[in-house]
Amino acid sequence: MADDNLERQIAFLVEIDGLKSIVRQSPLIDRSRRENSAEHSWHLALFALVLGDSTPEVTPTRVATMLLLHDIVEIDSGDAPIHASHDLEALAEKAAAERIFGLLPSAQRDRFLSLWLEFEAGETPDARFAKALDRLQPLLVNTLTGGGTWSENGVTEDQVCVRYGPTIERGSPALWTYARRLVHQHFLP
Amino acid sequence: MADDNLERQIAFLVEIDGLKSIVRQSPLIDRSRRENSAEHSWHLALFALVLGDSTPEVTPTRVATMLLLHDIVEIDSGDAPIHASHDLEALAEKAAAERIFGLLPSAQRDRFLSLWLEFEAGETPDARFAKALDRLQPLLVNTLTGGGTWSENGVTEDQVCVRYGPTIERGSPALWTYARRLVHQHFLP
Repeated sequence: MADDNLERQIAFLVEIDGLKSIVRQSPLIDRSRRENSAEHSWHLALFALVLGDSTPEVTPTRVATMLLLHDIVEIDSGDAPIHASHDLEALAEKAAAERIFGLLPSAQRDRFLSLWLEFEAGETPDARFAKALDRLQPLLVNTLTGGGTWSENGVTEDQVCVRYGPTIERGSPALWTYARRLVHQHFLP
Repeated sequence: MADDNLERQIAFLVEIDGLKSIVRQSPLIDRSRRENSAEHSWHLALFALVLGDSTPEVTPTRVATMLLLHDIVEIDSGDAPIHASHDLEALAEKAAAERIFGLLPSAQRDRFLSLWLEFEAGETPDARFAKALDRLQPLLVNTLTGGGTWSENGVTEDQVCVRYGPTIERGSPALWTYARRLVHQHFLP
């Protein structure tokens, strides 16, 4: 039984290697190439450990764990920054979560799936903070790379505030105050 | 003061983006390219969360945090699989840790530096387990990619056992029993 558990755990760890091949829209800060979802998840986990310390209502290691897991569904469903149908995409991601976390022994499957669903729902303080960081990181990268995906898509300051503001502010008003200033400076003529 | 802390935290998070450009010897499992140290750290953190559950003497989230941090020094010192001088390399890595973690507010710098030093020393159960995973992951990748770096370098079964065995067994005898069997199967004629 222990051996069977280990085989299942290794099968999961081998399967998730695929996240290293899912390429996102955002560039690296040195603009040498686009970022993939595995290294993005690593970066976000560090955001959680570093910035979560100043936010008493969250547990930084729990937020980090959530962010290490949150994109794994993209192995099946891809990174979808613009959504033709939110409902269809949510269904595909749920199926992906059940398949991929389902590779694990059942107790771990249940725990990881539950943490992933908590992130997706975005209602608890940890999930709201995790979602705020998932928006803050590309915002920061865009301001440091001459506009990044904003320039590519001709996005305005108002559009940035509408797309990023509510999620970041909901997770951390202090981080939105900071990020709002970065965005304003970026769009100054 | 709070604002100054946030500026320092963001400076650290921007600096560590560089780990995404440090390329390791190991390939991805699909052999499409070599792995970088940021996505490798993400993968290892998942190894810790998944495999640490069955190892009562370790704290999986603490091991995961250690592994998220352990390669950050490579931003300055590079990934060095073959060492001309262990002493010189250790000095360079220590200086890198002090510079990079030194970007953070002092309480976080001290905590991260201490966790990194604990990993390097490899004496506590968490550090021994973390080091075991850091060996297990490339071993697993090599067995899944027709030999990976072993084939490239003409390494024998005995040499693999000497290079990987003690570190993995010291962190987890059960994982070495498993890995030893994989290595043996890999080298069967």
